[in-house]
Amino acid sequence: MLPGFEEIKDAVMRVKPYVHNTPVFTSSTVNERTGATVFFKCENFQRMGAFKMRGAINAILQLPKTDRSKGVVTHSSGNFAQALALAARSLDVKAYIIMPNNAPLVKVEAVKGYGAEVIECAPTLESREKTCNEIQEKTQATFIHPSNDMNVILGQGTAAYELIREVKELDILLAPVGGGGLIAGTAMVQHYLLPESQTIGSEPFGADDAFLSLKMGKIQPSVNPITIADGLKTQLGDQNFPIIHKYVSNIIRVEESEIIAAMRYIWERMKIVIEPSSAVAVAALFRKRERFLKKKVGVILSGGNVDLSNLPF
Amino acid sequence: MLPGFEEIKDAVMRVKPYVHNTPVFTSSTVNERTGATVFFKCENFQRMGAFKMRGAINAILQLPKTDRSKGVVTHSSGNFAQALALAARSLDVKAYIIMPNNAPLVKVEAVKGYGAEVIECAPTLESREKTCNEIQEKTQATFIHPSNDMNVILGQGTAAYELIREVKELDILLAPVGGGGLIAGTAMVQHYLLPESQTIGSEPFGADDAFLSLKMGKIQPSVNPITIADGLKTQLGDQNFPIIHKYVSNIIRVEESEIIAAMRYIWERMKIVIEPSSAVAVAALFRKRERFLKKKVGVILSGGNVDLSNLPF
Repeated sequence: MLPGFEEIKDAVMRVKPYVHNTPVFTSSTVNERTGATVFFKCENFQRMGAFKMRGAINAILQLPKTDRSKGVVTHSSGNFAQALALAARSLDVKAYIIMPNNAPLVKVEAVKGYGAEVIECAPTLESREKTCNEIQEKTQATFIHPSNDMNVILGQGTAAYELIREVKELDILLAPVGGGGLIAGTAMVQHYLLPESQTIGSEPFGADDAFLSLKMGKIQPSVNPITIADGLKTQLGDQNFPIIHKYVSNIIRVEESEIIAAMRYIWERMKIVIEPSSAVAVAALFRKRERFLKKKVGVILSGGNVDLSNLPF
Repeated sequence: MLPGFEEIKDAVMRVKPYVHNTPVFTSSTVNERTGATVFFKCENFQRMGAFKMRGAINAILQLPKTDRSKGVVTHSSGNFAQALALAARSLDVKAYIIMPNNAPLVKVEAVKGYGAEVIECAPTLESREKTCNEIQEKTQATFIHPSNDMNVILGQGTAAYELIREVKELDILLAPVGGGGLIAGTAMVQHYLLPESQTIGSEPFGADDAFLSLKMGKIQPSVNPITIADGLKTQLGDQNFPIIHKYVSNIIRVEESEIIAAMRYIWERMKIVIEPSSAVAVAALFRKRERFLKKKVGVILSGGNVDLSNLPF
């Protein structure tokens, strides 16, 4: 049973006090280049710098009070770690974040800065899950998955909801695909608000598990993904795949060089900082010109967390 | 005779169809750090990426039709070159831009991209002025100075006008000082709209000619300025100095390391690209905490044109 429109509207109202209604940017330069009319939903301006804040806050808000008092736990070395930490702090809930011991210090510090307790594990799936189980047993904290959780998915969909409510008419929504939470939430919202429109995903060739999953009709693992878009290395899950399978039209794959060029282009022309994962959607827009020509396209710029000391240009 | 309020309002109405009413951004992180409430006027999102578009368009619009038909000319290797080129194109006016033969190719290309004719000169003041005179004689084009021209000053002031109209109450306006057009326009607008408030300038220690000019009560030359904020190397002129002398409270000087740190901070926390000249104002805000504490401060982020291949971090 997939969520209905009422559940989407509920999520929108629920997260509203805790997230920014991020601005929608347009760029005449981008419109000229693409021949489309493009609306960028700037989730790089979201709290903690990415859309992940939406899902994290929605998931915690859906917990019964007794569970909330015991805290929440997740494993992530990326944006969801910071998102859950900040969402938990906003709601006065304790957060435990499992991070691999090779995670960049700057990310560990950011999570700690939001008041979460960081628990280190070895950089393997086994160690991560074992550590996570231990923390759950010890603290009774609720595990919240970064992308394969229906409340997280509903939360992520609120970005597309705001975008559609503001722009009104859109032919296509375009978003990057990582763990599948954002694209599933986006597609579901588009299905209810703009049933005649389409949702298209974008993925690096070096991490195209979602493309393959859609093609095969079942979840394919993400095996040794290699891409600068480190937020997109994860794989789909049983909660979001049915939604993606049902509502996402197709997934456009892009080269690493296209991701870097698109990222630079947006920084230079639009003067905003977007992370490589966001640039994947822009690269898809540039790569498949004929697909978007003369269309009104909503692009979710998913985040802006970049290590400025380590830029690809 | 300085311009009156009517002339300011006229300039606002005149430039309106040709410039973006750029957004005003806030940042809770910046407010926490400074103890002030800061409103950033994002002129980095202005057309061609800087406030200079405002002055350029206002100056051309003030020319009689017969003069317009002969074109406009300026010498600049910075943002004003692009601004005059784009403003001229927007009004179907021919633009001649004198640029030193050591100007970065990317800037020359940008100006040409806006349809202007680029005339190279040797990188000396003498060659620049000689070439400019030759072009004027040959074409009868009107020379428009990048900062020492009352119509340019009035145009630059329209950014502060929009900012004040949107935020309404502001205790202090803060802007960088280069050739003096922006700070003079800002101070004049503040004087009329918020007479009880103050305008403060900011300058690198390595290019503090305006600080010295205010101190001495007369224009001091900018001698061998050394700063990463290349837009601020120019000196004041007889059109803007009287305004600055009369209406600017003081000028805060900042170190190069502070400029770079402020630039990085804004990129990382606010996810927007600002150029070093804009970061000078932010650095001043951070340096003189007690000066801005508990105040409502409007900061003009003057532009976002940065060479991403050559970042200081």
